[in-house]
Amino acid sequence: MGVVVQNINRAEKSVVDAFSKGRYGVATVHEAQGRKGLLAPGIRPIYQGAHVAGTAVTISAPPCDNWMIHVAVEQCQPGDVLVLAPTSESDAGYFGDLLATSLIARGVKALIINAGVRDTRDLTEMKFPVWSKCVFSQGTVKETLGSVNVPVVCAGALVRPGDLIVADDDGVVVVEREDAADILKKSQEREANEDAKRKRLAAGELGLDIYDMRGRLAEKGLNYIDQADLD
Amino acid sequence: MGVVVQNINRAEKSVVDAFSKGRYGVATVHEAQGRKGLLAPGIRPIYQGAHVAGTAVTISAPPCDNWMIHVAVEQCQPGDVLVLAPTSESDAGYFGDLLATSLIARGVKALIINAGVRDTRDLTEMKFPVWSKCVFSQGTVKETLGSVNVPVVCAGALVRPGDLIVADDDGVVVVEREDAADILKKSQEREANEDAKRKRLAAGELGLDIYDMRGRLAEKGLNYIDQADLD
Amino acid sequence: MGVVVQNINRAEKSVVDAFSKGRYGVATVHEAQGRKGLLAPGIRPIYQGAHVAGTAVTISAPPCDNWMIHVAVEQCQPGDVLVLAPTSESDAGYFGDLLATSLIARGVKALIINAGVRDTRDLTEMKFPVWSKCVFSQGTVKETLGSVNVPVVCAGALVRPGDLIVADDDGVVVVEREDAADILKKSQEREANEDAKRKRLAAGELGLDIYDMRGRLAEKGLNYIDQADLD
Amino acid sequence: MGVVVQNINRAEKSVVDAFSKGRYGVATVHEAQGRKGLLAPGIRPIYQGAHVAGTAVTISAPPCDNWMIHVAVEQCQPGDVLVLAPTSESDAGYFGDLLATSLIARGVKALIINAGVRDTRDLTEMKFPVWSKCVFSQGTVKETLGSVNVPVVCAGALVRPGDLIVADDDGVVVVEREDAADILKKSQEREANEDAKRKRLAAGELGLDIYDMRGRLAEKGLNYIDQADLD
Amino acid sequence: MGVVVQNINRAEKSVVDAFSKGRYGVATVHEAQGRKGLLAPGIRPIYQGAHVAGTAVTISAPPCDNWMIHVAVEQCQPGDVLVLAPTSESDAGYFGDLLATSLIARGVKALIINAGVRDTRDLTEMKFPVWSKCVFSQGTVKETLGSVNVPVVCAGALVRPGDLIVADDDGVVVVEREDAADILKKSQEREANEDAKRKRLAAGELGLDIYDMRGRLAEKGLNYIDQADLD
Amino acid sequence: MGVVVQNINRAEKSVVDAFSKGRYGVATVHEAQGRKGLLAPGIRPIYQGAHVAGTAVTISAPPCDNWMIHVAVEQCQPGDVLVLAPTSESDAGYFGDLLATSLIARGVKALIINAGVRDTRDLTEMKFPVWSKCVFSQGTVKETLGSVNVPVVCAGALVRPGDLIVADDDGVVVVEREDAADILKKSQEREANEDAKRKRLAAGELGLDIYDMRGRLAEKGLNYIDQADLD
Repeated sequence: MGVVVQNINRAEKSVVDAFSKGRYGVATVHEAQGRKGLLAPGIRPIYQGAHVAGTAVTISAPPCDNWMIHVAVEQCQPGDVLVLAPTSESDAGYFGDLLATSLIARGVKALIINAGVRDTRDLTEMKFPVWSKCVFSQGTVKETLGSVNVPVVCAGALVRPGDLIVADDDGVVVVEREDAADILKKSQEREANEDAKRKRLAAGELGLDIYDMRGRLAEKGLNYIDQADLD
Repeated sequence: MGVVVQNINRAEKSVVDAFSKGRYGVATVHEAQGRKGLLAPGIRPIYQGAHVAGTAVTISAPPCDNWMIHVAVEQCQPGDVLVLAPTSESDAGYFGDLLATSLIARGVKALIINAGVRDTRDLTEMKFPVWSKCVFSQGTVKETLGSVNVPVVCAGALVRPGDLIVADDDGVVVVEREDAADILKKSQEREANEDAKRKRLAAGELGLDIYDMRGRLAEKGLNYIDQADLD
Repeated sequence: MGVVVQNINRAEKSVVDAFSKGRYGVATVHEAQGRKGLLAPGIRPIYQGAHVAGTAVTISAPPCDNWMIHVAVEQCQPGDVLVLAPTSESDAGYFGDLLATSLIARGVKALIINAGVRDTRDLTEMKFPVWSKCVFSQGTVKETLGSVNVPVVCAGALVRPGDLIVADDDGVVVVEREDAADILKKSQEREANEDAKRKRLAAGELGLDIYDMRGRLAEKGLNYIDQADLD
Repeated sequence: MGVVVQNINRAEKSVVDAFSKGRYGVATVHEAQGRKGLLAPGIRPIYQGAHVAGTAVTISAPPCDNWMIHVAVEQCQPGDVLVLAPTSESDAGYFGDLLATSLIARGVKALIINAGVRDTRDLTEMKFPVWSKCVFSQGTVKETLGSVNVPVVCAGALVRPGDLIVADDDGVVVVEREDAADILKKSQEREANEDAKRKRLAAGELGLDIYDMRGRLAEKGLNYIDQADLD
Repeated sequence: MGVVVQNINRAEKSVVDAFSKGRYGVATVHEAQGRKGLLAPGIRPIYQGAHVAGTAVTISAPPCDNWMIHVAVEQCQPGDVLVLAPTSESDAGYFGDLLATSLIARGVKALIINAGVRDTRDLTEMKFPVWSKCVFSQGTVKETLGSVNVPVVCAGALVRPGDLIVADDDGVVVVEREDAADILKKSQEREANEDAKRKRLAAGELGLDIYDMRGRLAEKGLNYIDQADLD
Repeated sequence: MGVVVQNINRAEKSVVDAFSKGRYGVATVHEAQGRKGLLAPGIRPIYQGAHVAGTAVTISAPPCDNWMIHVAVEQCQPGDVLVLAPTSESDAGYFGDLLATSLIARGVKALIINAGVRDTRDLTEMKFPVWSKCVFSQGTVKETLGSVNVPVVCAGALVRPGDLIVADDDGVVVVEREDAADILKKSQEREANEDAKRKRLAAGELGLDIYDMRGRLAEKGLNYIDQADLD
């Protein structure tokens, strides 16, 4: 503990920007990378409708101590997303409108925190999105060191500094920095593929037929009976 | 497992439509049928303001396996509501915008699921309401059979195929198919009765007097004292 | 049990009104009074955007029994906030639109309840804010006495009759009646102080410098290293 | 509500006794009947080592009201197991040593309750096993009717009067009354089958070989690599 | 915060000793004092079989900071029970075998803590009972002041310094210092009364008859029907 | 997914054995390595009194699918501990007495699983310890590949193949393979240091004096007052 890693390597800016521009959603990215990297479903946005793609600046912080956020702000660049994981469970309100003001001034896009947040009305008006475990005003202290830009486990997912973070109404997913370009391509393909299927489904075709499932269902023994035969 | 019951008996269409038209709420219907049939409060709508009344097509699905939704779609008719209960606890995202597209094409009104849902931004824009245990993007597989249109326990409530489902911002309630007409009548009576009381309460009359509670409270021993006597 | 205390002493009206007018938030008030008095984060508003400051009329009620709410209504004055704590855990729906109609007629501003609420669509339209543990339609009975205007522990916080309640999107905080004027002053000072800091942070100054943290961080042993040195 | 069904049909006594004598466990019975009927894992025994098989006498009780237990006692016969499901979530202590004394006098074997229990030290000394949601002393009232021997949903499982209940350190499973003899046979076969496998596994044979899994794993694409190739 | 109250008034020693000697249980004491004072059911003993009655020395501690325990030890007398409530939710391990050694040296009987405890194997062997929210080794810091011997809300119950604490396998209950002698008498009466009923129940009499419930059940409309009439 | 890494590097056997022989507890090891590596407190042993130190063989498994356990068994050596993390939340019973028999035959010491376990009575009698999220009999399938000996996040902690696992009544901690020898030394030192303190505390010395806390407490502003001055 007590380490700040400077000059981290970040996922490539043009790739990250493409995730933002395409508004590739959490579900899409999660699928595109083989169904990994999701943060636990308890991490929820404080308001609906935000979509964010950015590079992680990570914080490993003691429970109920937000000192390291101040340290982390200095390490942030435009396009970053702050990711805070307490070293043990905490619902304290580490973050409010003053810190958001500071982050906005540095071009930071969002906060992901496995703990509490406060001043949510202000944050909503400022359009600074936060995904958090809870909303809680409990104040924190500035007494104990943590670390900035070390790998952290946040809400069950491993996040390394510089990794790509995508967050929307569905939650948060992390993509390893080195894989971002590959996953962008796969996300684009997936969306294209889904568009074609969406049209067929909207026209009334069944998934059973589009995905050719009937044979395999029968083989597994699926048994169609009539309600009248049960009565 | 592995059974699909076809041609189920549904609650009568005209009755179901009357629930929709009258927008009878979950609280009203729950009271009208003697305070039963509520799904647990953890089942929440993905957006506010939806009201749905429809007939249940039920799915008993393995955890993290959404294959049976595709099977169930074929069994759906306009006015149905899909109800999915996993056979053991799951927070996986069984359902997203593609399946919603398919259900809308068949006239299905909503999904009730004791598990996760994803693509919630899309679903909100499509105005396809979902009541779920959580929002989570975790992908599911298509490997193991479940059953369609068998009785299921969903979030603590027994739901049989064809039963009436009513859902709104307050949650979800199920009415046995055979009772739907009777409960419609009782819901209408209850609302009429409440209107009269609402007017009296709005005029400043007390429930204590409207419901004639003072005698019974005194009999039970309710004791009025003055703060000044305690100081 | 079974006591109703009448003519309680309330936090001074002009002070309470000043909290409303200034819209001092829960986080601010919590800090101003030395970080105490918060209700647990599970108590959430049924809709976003409400801000309330009022004087507590307290209810200690049996689980799943809302009789005492009717008794409490009679004790309410304009500007009060009803605070209900069940004597054991309950998620039942103690409160709906009829009781809200009655409370509005008496000038009551809000309900804080460590249990369930129903008719939330109506309550939202009526603009009667409720902070509750859950939304659930489960009906309650009127069988067992509780007490009104006795000290209660609600969601982990001690609330005495007449105490000041402040609630907003961040949750709920209670201020002891006798301290309200003092905490108003401290809340005002805190907001003024924050305004100055907000301007500096918005201009890009770092909290590290504004709060003069660098020395103490170094003293604690914070260690800056370069990513390149780790690779 | 308010119904007591008398003279229910119970699973056949000789079959139930065979489950007790063979000490067929919850996991075995659950598997033998096709993986259904489990109560949720939150239902835990108050002490370790008990095994019970008996016929269900069911109680649908209001939250925090144990009146119906007294009514149910009269309906019990030797070999029964009492199953109590509150109509809404409750952690109250419905049951303690006096009621256990009464049940023991009637030959009842155990209590399954989706709520709280108290006097657990006494119950342990009396060797009266209880599977409950929690241990909590909160007293209950006797004010509101419920029903006895109606179908209930208890901790997510449908239990009908007379159904077979099996409970051990792993939890609780319900077997439909009509299926008990069939499931006994399948449980016996399963145990016999497992004994053979247990011997092979104890001798060091791998499940991969015993169950002939290698081919199917390869077909699915399982890829064996060496750590040295990753370094 | 930051206050240590010395020379508190404690519940009378002879009365406290009588609770210990009589081993009056939590359920009995809770009932004897009118069903109040229970800590939430999540507070569980680290081992089974302990019974404790003692006088509360209270600690209001910051989350994840156990400094105040050291301060509190000095305030303890033989027969005391330490009660720790964090100012916000914490599962950290505030307490282990070293602190237990210190408390035993001062004659302290137990710890009640709405947070975590560690070294539970050692504590069990030392026979120092702890009732806690969880078992967790997470270390705490010694950075921020709290208070000793101020009123605290611990797991939902108000505990004042010097109050009587009774704890057993059923959980923990607090009795106001001034009421201890009265509640002792009522606990004794209750136990005597229960003994008589226990004998009658053991002899096979029904609670329905002992408590004369049949008339009131009929009046409420309880309806006995026969299973054969339903088939 | 679908990778099995063979011939992993394990923490050195003599070091692991020294942890076992010294029975260094989870709390000690956690402190010795700077307070990291703890699994969440929800992971509990199925019986009390076990202590295990071993090298991790990791499994990343789909929810409700235990196929990979069979694959992992083949990769196990004497002294290993199996660590299973589902890719999404699951309470299914992945593991029972047959798999335990197989693991014992290979010299495996324990299972750590962020999901359910069954046959706990048998496992207890076999003295095969399991630390799990819950006890639940729900059967699993063998349909979908996972991976063996890849890094996993298990109950919030990153576990890499070959890492040292220490588990006891307090829970589970992971030590990075490369650090094991260093942490052994620090654990030994810590225990020695604690022995000295234990003696002084047992003799009645206060932590306030042993750790020389009085000055710093005064400096922070701790204020001693007398109860009599408050009355």
